[in-house]
Amino acid sequence: MAKTMLLIAAASASAGAAVTAMLLGKRDGQAQPASTISPPSGPSTAKSSTPALTTTENVQSGSKNIIDPSGWFSYGAPGPTNDLASRTSFISVYDRRMRNPAWVAEHITAESLSGAKGDRRNSVFLEDQAVPEIFRARLKDYFRSGYDRGHMAPAADAKFNQQAMDETFYLTNMCPQVGEGFNRDYWAHLEDFCRRLTAKYRSIRVITGPLYLPKLDSDGKYRVSYEVIGSPPNVAVPTHFYKIILGESGAAPSPTASVAIGAFVLPNAPIDNKTPLAEFSVPVEMIEKASGLDFLSLVPTERRRSLCREVDCSILKW
Amino acid sequence: MAKTMLLIAAASASAGAAVTAMLLGKRDGQAQPASTISPPSGPSTAKSSTPALTTTENVQSGSKNIIDPSGWFSYGAPGPTNDLASRTSFISVYDRRMRNPAWVAEHITAESLSGAKGDRRNSVFLEDQAVPEIFRARLKDYFRSGYDRGHMAPAADAKFNQQAMDETFYLTNMCPQVGEGFNRDYWAHLEDFCRRLTAKYRSIRVITGPLYLPKLDSDGKYRVSYEVIGSPPNVAVPTHFYKIILGESGAAPSPTASVAIGAFVLPNAPIDNKTPLAEFSVPVEMIEKASGLDFLSLVPTERRRSLCREVDCSILKW
Repeated sequence: MAKTMLLIAAASASAGAAVTAMLLGKRDGQAQPASTISPPSGPSTAKSSTPALTTTENVQSGSKNIIDPSGWFSYGAPGPTNDLASRTSFISVYDRRMRNPAWVAEHITAESLSGAKGDRRNSVFLEDQAVPEIFRARLKDYFRSGYDRGHMAPAADAKFNQQAMDETFYLTNMCPQVGEGFNRDYWAHLEDFCRRLTAKYRSIRVITGPLYLPKLDSDGKYRVSYEVIGSPPNVAVPTHFYKIILGESGAAPSPTASVAIGAFVLPNAPIDNKTPLAEFSVPVEMIEKASGLDFLSLVPTERRRSLCREVDCSILKW
Repeated sequence: MAKTMLLIAAASASAGAAVTAMLLGKRDGQAQPASTISPPSGPSTAKSSTPALTTTENVQSGSKNIIDPSGWFSYGAPGPTNDLASRTSFISVYDRRMRNPAWVAEHITAESLSGAKGDRRNSVFLEDQAVPEIFRARLKDYFRSGYDRGHMAPAADAKFNQQAMDETFYLTNMCPQVGEGFNRDYWAHLEDFCRRLTAKYRSIRVITGPLYLPKLDSDGKYRVSYEVIGSPPNVAVPTHFYKIILGESGAAPSPTASVAIGAFVLPNAPIDNKTPLAEFSVPVEMIEKASGLDFLSLVPTERRRSLCREVDCSILKW
């Protein structure tokens, strides 16, 4: 039986050899230069009391170590590696498996929004060469996909200079977004809502990213299902997007001041502009569970205020 | 319009408020203790020439810094955090979003397999308390799911003592696997194949993990679709599993010696035991592209030999 047939025949399996062919790029067993290798992210500090990578002491046969699982690292550190990019107006962390950012954190103030030296008509979309080629989202993945290259940190938040504006066009700041009714409409109004908050708060921080959420199927099971665009299929199309918004009263983050917090999850789909933003409000924890991320671990409950109790959470202009 | 209705109405969106409710655990805006916070994994070294987290220098209005995107880290470091566990017989890295390991690396030798002091009948499945509760896979997620708690590093590779055996039962070493025809059959034979390789090679290393692969839908689009088990839905059911097997000739990894490499991707589905293992052989790079991981970056092409050219890649006993 041919490999292709075999894998296709297996229930709920992917198309086997065809998938292999799809997923393969040009790299062919070539080693990457050692300079691109990162060790796996350290153990969570919850585990750091256990000395990592010292297992050779554990398994002894008489006086001799018989196995050493950490020996794999002599061949490479699997990762996952978080490609962190520190830009002028935002910081992004890239998810190599989904080929989308995991999160993008930006900072806006009335002052940062007041400049107009950057013009998006002078910017072009950019593949991020800092991400190894086999993990990189590419312009051709988006081409004719039917989806917009949707900014996580908005271009309009980086008008204070052209470099800042240009940097928002890296694909490591993009996800595939439904254009009409979403990226060009409701989502754009949500971005504007964030900017308008600078009238109320001295400083606004926004963290934005994709989600891939399960839904209940007709057979009573929950499944996550998302499209993958590009040829070969490369970039995941998120089912939803989140924004967590912080309103700060001070000029800089304080370890003791409270912050106003709003968290929103929107489907990657057309949304009627008449829909109240509050309909999409969720607890931060819902986004944490769904994303595997931990956004506000240094902010105890008593320092958290509800943004939507302090401002009208509406995309309508006040 | 109720939030639930609204989100359900959005095309290809998840069930909104219902999903929120599902995904929410007991934690309610509680801050985690500071000791569990890890900074985001460092920048990939490819980017390390760009000083990270120094963006305050970038945006100046006259002599004053006007924004500081890194200020978010005063509230928490989003991650992703890789929960690395160093066990007696293996090392695992956990994926908090999928609630499965990302990879599990083990080391076996004829000597490590010769002991029989550990017995799986004395072991019990264990939730991994080192993973924060909201990200932890739980025993109840698997209960009545229809899937086995499938070992990545097999119990049978850790018979040399009871502690090593017990550690293979952490859920951070498990994924939901189809039982009959896969975990208890073909997959078990593949694990046995790895052990038998110790007759040919002085040392065997195996890295094992889940994949979530796209397949071609009837509408001509590629989609990833996988079940999520537990109530609320918590643990992803992988569509496939990979094993990368290294055969070493020496007593320890050498920076110059060549290694025999085999890489296999199997669907999480019943497989006829008559199917040749070679049918599932893939280039390592296919697994790297699909997983976002980088397994052998320190091994240049000239040090890579093909395992299946040196041994009969078959689950049948030689």
